[in-house]
Amino acid sequence: MNIEELGKQIELAHGSGGKSTHRLIETAILPALKNSTLESLSDAAVINCEEKRLALTTDSFVVHPLLFPGGSIGKLAINGSVNDLAVSGAEPQAILLSLIVEAGLPMEIFLREIKAIADASSKAAVQVIGGDTKVVEHGKGDGMYITTTALGIVDPRINLSPRRIKPGDQIIVSGPIGDHGITILLARGEIDLEANLQSDSRPLWPLVKSMISVCPTAVKWMRDPTRGGVATVLNELSREIKMGIVLFEESIPLREEVRGACEILGLDPLHIACEGQFVAVVEKDLLSELLKELRKVPGGEGAVHIGEVREKPPGVVLAVSTYGGSRRVDMLIGDPLPRIC
Amino acid sequence: MNIEELGKQIELAHGSGGKSTHRLIETAILPALKNSTLESLSDAAVINCEEKRLALTTDSFVVHPLLFPGGSIGKLAINGSVNDLAVSGAEPQAILLSLIVEAGLPMEIFLREIKAIADASSKAAVQVIGGDTKVVEHGKGDGMYITTTALGIVDPRINLSPRRIKPGDQIIVSGPIGDHGITILLARGEIDLEANLQSDSRPLWPLVKSMISVCPTAVKWMRDPTRGGVATVLNELSREIKMGIVLFEESIPLREEVRGACEILGLDPLHIACEGQFVAVVEKDLLSELLKELRKVPGGEGAVHIGEVREKPPGVVLAVSTYGGSRRVDMLIGDPLPRIC
Repeated sequence: MNIEELGKQIELAHGSGGKSTHRLIETAILPALKNSTLESLSDAAVINCEEKRLALTTDSFVVHPLLFPGGSIGKLAINGSVNDLAVSGAEPQAILLSLIVEAGLPMEIFLREIKAIADASSKAAVQVIGGDTKVVEHGKGDGMYITTTALGIVDPRINLSPRRIKPGDQIIVSGPIGDHGITILLARGEIDLEANLQSDSRPLWPLVKSMISVCPTAVKWMRDPTRGGVATVLNELSREIKMGIVLFEESIPLREEVRGACEILGLDPLHIACEGQFVAVVEKDLLSELLKELRKVPGGEGAVHIGEVREKPPGVVLAVSTYGGSRRVDMLIGDPLPRIC
Repeated sequence: MNIEELGKQIELAHGSGGKSTHRLIETAILPALKNSTLESLSDAAVINCEEKRLALTTDSFVVHPLLFPGGSIGKLAINGSVNDLAVSGAEPQAILLSLIVEAGLPMEIFLREIKAIADASSKAAVQVIGGDTKVVEHGKGDGMYITTTALGIVDPRINLSPRRIKPGDQIIVSGPIGDHGITILLARGEIDLEANLQSDSRPLWPLVKSMISVCPTAVKWMRDPTRGGVATVLNELSREIKMGIVLFEESIPLREEVRGACEILGLDPLHIACEGQFVAVVEKDLLSELLKELRKVPGGEGAVHIGEVREKPPGVVLAVSTYGGSRRVDMLIGDPLPRIC
């Protein structure tokens, strides 16, 4: 793909986390900034500091609306960044916080979000150690945008690498998927649907730690399926390892509200963002023990086995049903739900 | 000050870097997020990693217009963050980059800024090791906002601490002040003034390194006077050390264009932002040698002695002229130049 094919302007889909985002990053950004750390495209950059491996990650949050059932932009901004560390096997240590605030934002909303940030960082056991505040004119923002950068230390016992993955490895997810994306969609009030649903935004490190306690090397790969959902992260993985990934359609954990909303709207729940779940590839032998431990941790009660890695078809994610049907699951194309994080 | 006195909504002045920003941070943010690293309010947070001291800093850039003489938002975003490290005595090692792009931004502008980021990071000898891209709807942004986070390693020989400052220490600046702020003001075309002026955006580490080579402990304190200008950083210092700071009015280096624009607009050049200068407090004995070394480094040719620390008046910055007059120089109040970085 060459640069002319990118299109003439930035579109919302470039921020979807799906195919357009990938194209933009791979065609426009990576070639210009190339270095080996960046090219790994992992959730967090890992750099060595003497004997320790430091993990660093940054994310901007532009969720609309700012407040939604189960959370708000401040909570999301903390959990989003610490979770990128957690799925990189790193224990979160500190956060940097940068705010872009629109002039005219009511002070009580600003203060509410500072409190949400304080509460979420205390819950995730990280301190906010630095930051910045910028203000833009009314009409040049949308209340507030938050960028967080999280620093963590990689657990020295863990060994996450797609190169360790073999056919026969199993795929688990920590709980029901799509809660966050559908919650945001409904919170916008543009769709006449009522559901008793809330965002799953939560810190994932306690779940990851429980798996390390079973066996640090049992987990070979982990991602948190935010923008683009489970389908996008598993497609990235299957392409990288050149193996097939098979999901057991009926095992994918879905709340009734999410299933219903997706059916009505014609969305695939596998494309809907979570903000407090991970997908992991684990060793088959330790599968039940890992799930048992995960289910003891608050937030991990819904952890289940959803699929496995197979030799074929290489680079493809398939969802198979117990009735014998199978469908190809692709990355997210376009952006049905912009600004969900 | 209590929280009711903050006002009912966020105003542009809360982003000025001057008094309103200080009030917002001290009243609304610090009490909620308190910890000792954050409370130092330094340009970069310093954390220990085994034998090394790591410096981390984050900044959002919302400059308008995106392109201006001497630079653009991409260049500014790299230099702004690496300079916060440099004035903390840390050699920049890596950058994380987070983009918030407005839908409809022409692709060529996006690509131009990626190139500006690549060029500036290569010039500053740092790699972009991670990032994020979000897109907001047309009308909810202003082209693009960039947040950069920079990681550096503090030079183990340097010892920056306001506690080392004594009356008799001297104040230097690395070159003419106010170039960036006035360049941005003129680039907006709202004022009928023409000037052959460009932003001073440049990486400062080479200048800091040259001072370390003279004597690592000769420099006791350093800041880059961005938003709020030289007046704001020196007021912060004088309050912290409870000593007086005297500036020699005629020694303050100013280009004719900046002087002229400030006179016409009724602005104090000491309040105007620089993006490639530092102010430092240095030992009197090494003053000439430091200036000599600085002037050998590209970008340091205009380094001069501009003032000194005195016992009195405590907490006050005075500008004295050779004719015997003196005026009190306060922090920036309000925001005459919003979104200059």
